[in-house]
Amino acid sequence: MANLKATHQKTKRHNRDLVLKTIFARQPISRAEIARITSLTRATVSEIINTFLTEGLVEEVGLGSSIGGKSPILLSLVADSRYLIGLNLAQDKFIGSVVNLLGELKETVEIPISDNDGKQALDTVFQILDQLVAKNWKPVVGIGIATPGLVNTREGVVLNAVNLDWQDLPLAHLIKARYRLPVCVVNDSQANAIGEFVYGGKHEPEGNLVVVNVRHGIGAGILINGQLFQGDGGSAGEIGHVMVQPEGGRLCRCGKRGCLETISSAKAVVQRARELAKDFPHSELAKNPANINLNAVVDAFQHNDTLALLVARDAAKFLGFSLATLVGTLNIEDIVLTGEMSRLGSTWLAQIRESMLEAGLARMVQETRLEIGKLDFRGYILGSSALMLLEDYSLLFLKSEE
Amino acid sequence: MANLKATHQKTKRHNRDLVLKTIFARQPISRAEIARITSLTRATVSEIINTFLTEGLVEEVGLGSSIGGKSPILLSLVADSRYLIGLNLAQDKFIGSVVNLLGELKETVEIPISDNDGKQALDTVFQILDQLVAKNWKPVVGIGIATPGLVNTREGVVLNAVNLDWQDLPLAHLIKARYRLPVCVVNDSQANAIGEFVYGGKHEPEGNLVVVNVRHGIGAGILINGQLFQGDGGSAGEIGHVMVQPEGGRLCRCGKRGCLETISSAKAVVQRARELAKDFPHSELAKNPANINLNAVVDAFQHNDTLALLVARDAAKFLGFSLATLVGTLNIEDIVLTGEMSRLGSTWLAQIRESMLEAGLARMVQETRLEIGKLDFRGYILGSSALMLLEDYSLLFLKSEE
Repeated sequence: MANLKATHQKTKRHNRDLVLKTIFARQPISRAEIARITSLTRATVSEIINTFLTEGLVEEVGLGSSIGGKSPILLSLVADSRYLIGLNLAQDKFIGSVVNLLGELKETVEIPISDNDGKQALDTVFQILDQLVAKNWKPVVGIGIATPGLVNTREGVVLNAVNLDWQDLPLAHLIKARYRLPVCVVNDSQANAIGEFVYGGKHEPEGNLVVVNVRHGIGAGILINGQLFQGDGGSAGEIGHVMVQPEGGRLCRCGKRGCLETISSAKAVVQRARELAKDFPHSELAKNPANINLNAVVDAFQHNDTLALLVARDAAKFLGFSLATLVGTLNIEDIVLTGEMSRLGSTWLAQIRESMLEAGLARMVQETRLEIGKLDFRGYILGSSALMLLEDYSLLFLKSEE
Repeated sequence: MANLKATHQKTKRHNRDLVLKTIFARQPISRAEIARITSLTRATVSEIINTFLTEGLVEEVGLGSSIGGKSPILLSLVADSRYLIGLNLAQDKFIGSVVNLLGELKETVEIPISDNDGKQALDTVFQILDQLVAKNWKPVVGIGIATPGLVNTREGVVLNAVNLDWQDLPLAHLIKARYRLPVCVVNDSQANAIGEFVYGGKHEPEGNLVVVNVRHGIGAGILINGQLFQGDGGSAGEIGHVMVQPEGGRLCRCGKRGCLETISSAKAVVQRARELAKDFPHSELAKNPANINLNAVVDAFQHNDTLALLVARDAAKFLGFSLATLVGTLNIEDIVLTGEMSRLGSTWLAQIRESMLEAGLARMVQETRLEIGKLDFRGYILGSSALMLLEDYSLLFLKSEE
């Protein structure tokens, strides 16, 4: 009997999480539609929904359109019934927010970061969390951290984050000990991908998505069957160091030559503009080459400055080639571009698409949708907080289980 | 009550399939180990195992090593308790086998193929299946077909297979109608990857694997979390048309230039050897350039012929670069190489590895294991038959369910 009961409990939990996952991705949604998607019986779905209503986790929000017969009642999560905290450890500042179940940022704290000092970086994480926790948004059910560098998400350890001076830091453990909450630590480009997937209008319970984050460096996050795919070593999506110029490429910070980052990143674009300025005396950028930064390049690009157009076009070209390779490898048909470089906007996007179409197998690249992400800095925060949910919806249940 | 009962049935089926999947991947295995891996209670596992023993699907095969206390009884599938049929539609011949649960080929039928005639190709498929079914291996529980070209596996439709003159052929439906058995149709490189995963010593229930098939063309199959990953359009692994030579690459059959296939495939190696023969008067291959084929190149390569070494080295170099990109993208740490080109053996493999190490991010490529597959032509046959099992173990249950 103990056996049967344990099995039954497990099933109930599984079904409950499945229903919640479906509401999370597809809200507002009717009970009938949930039953259809999950293959659970309508009676089971209704029973589960009743517990959600009792918990205050879900609410009835109106009537859907009918296809004959009664209009179905639509259900949504109660936006402010639970909160998560998401934190992004960006290069110049750490920024954390309390987030509700619709991905709205309720409260945000940021602290600038200067020194490359591991102890101070950790203190700053605690400072932000202390402030957010003190604000009295209740209940907070978990904390997610997006960090640069190499992360073991399963163990919650930052293996190596050079800018933060962290090696083998058991970050999840340290935060859990202080705040007594579930904690999740994830690479920032991967977090950003989760954010775009869950809150960027791409949320399908079993969907696939690639999000390529193009900023100082370049990194991607890959969602497969509705879950973050990290690969065996945790670094899936590390496409910034894919070699795109086998001959005569520039030296990369990784020690190799011709990496995608050396031509398509924000850093590369700025560097190349500085170096080439002397050949473009009429360029606005040539006036003070040493002061060229990404803002200047973006401005000049929008004014059709020849130097800015050149470096941006080369950046777009090789990024497009890399996307063609990605599409050939994974055949994932939704790709979102994020990061500072996406400020170059639709012209840049069109050039990337053109190169992707040139380099890829026609029937595959033609079916691929490229777009620019909508969440900017929120992607990291929302993604780090949402990862915990994608992996375990039971976080949201407060009452003890039967 | 109907509700509870339906849910309970579903759970039972889920648990049963989970236990079977675990035995399939890890046999011989003890009940305790199954319970540990599946997180099911030992009582549940024992109950399920009893039904398998009654069905004759599983048997006790001896004692495992003890870690204190009684030695555990080990369980394995009964090799010949069920059969599957796998069929590979290769370029020059179709070959089909009856396969048992250990992946042993019990009976094989092959028929050469000549004309590019869709009707005749389909008739040949039926001929082989007729013969295999007539041989009286009982019970056969399903048929898997590995075909070149673009396949919609979910619908069982061959969308386009140029060599076979098939467009939008509902192959699964046609075979199902004739033999009244479950049928699965899958791209041959994907089938081959499943074969290597399940029967090549790589079988982990939730494991990842990439298998790159290097022959006339080049295609890969990707296993993620123990399942074939096909991407949104079904063509994941189509790496033969990844552009590796943006400048000055050769024209590919796909219409683009510089595809991986134009330098690293068996076809490319033979073509290049023919073209370059005049520059290598001392090469064995130069004696009769028009007659150079892959056999000749492999022979010459093994005798350190300079021309053969050159074309093989270039082939290995760009394949290694592509693998570095694959590793950067997916961080999957097991890669198996198969196909005719793998006859070049360990020297070729070492050159590929060297290029992969040169082009990839050190910490990722250094952790990646490259090896040559063990199954040769059996990979396709075993993989096409095993795909059905990976997706639905309930195929193996003959008795009606409670």
